[in-house]
Amino acid sequence: MAKKFSDLRAQMKPEALQRADAEAKTLLAEMPLNELRQARGLSQKMLAEVLHVQQPSIAKIEKRTDMYLSTLRSHIEAMGGELDIVARFPDGSVKISNFADLGKTAAL
Amino acid sequence: MAKKFSDLRAQMKPEALQRADAEAKTLLAEMPLNELRQARGLSQKMLAEVLHVQQPSIAKIEKRTDMYLSTLRSHIEAMGGELDIVARFPDGSVKISNFADLGKTAAL
Repeated sequence: MAKKFSDLRAQMKPEALQRADAEAKTLLAEMPLNELRQARGLSQKMLAEVLHVQQPSIAKIEKRTDMYLSTLRSHIEAMGGELDIVARFPDGSVKISNFADLGKTAAL
Repeated sequence: MAKKFSDLRAQMKPEALQRADAEAKTLLAEMPLNELRQARGLSQKMLAEVLHVQQPSIAKIEKRTDMYLSTLRSHIEAMGGELDIVARFPDGSVKISNFADLGKTAAL
């Protein structure tokens, strides 16, 4: 069965392979949520306005080390991004698609 | 401030750049948790044993569309992988580091 995983790229359509490669090659760096917000040129106040919450809620989210995927997705979408959940293995990484349909208006 | 984001790669050390590229280029495909488990050659029963839970708990996790990051991390680590949380923007992607220290033994 492990063979199935390692042969995955061979089974993929060229378009899917290109898309995966294009998405993957733009990985820039690793940083916490507050640094990402600053790198996007956003203040806590601006993000709070987009999400219709008070500024302390944003500060709280940025300090958390665990949260619901839907909460994180809302937060990242408010910054203009998309949340990708990736399972990384020594022989390759897979994007987990279970959560693709999470509500875009999930509560904080 | 947006400049900071777009110039990020230029500011990175060569080692960090290489690591980001190496991690990124191995993205294989997109699939739900149950298919990933099968691709890893694991049954629900095997995964349940690793996580010290009953088999129905695994079935339940695989059907969820939202969950705590810590729960998902435990599930993926039980399959031998690592969870990466990525914020994808049109001009590049960033791995979110807030959750890197999530307990490896978080409850399901």
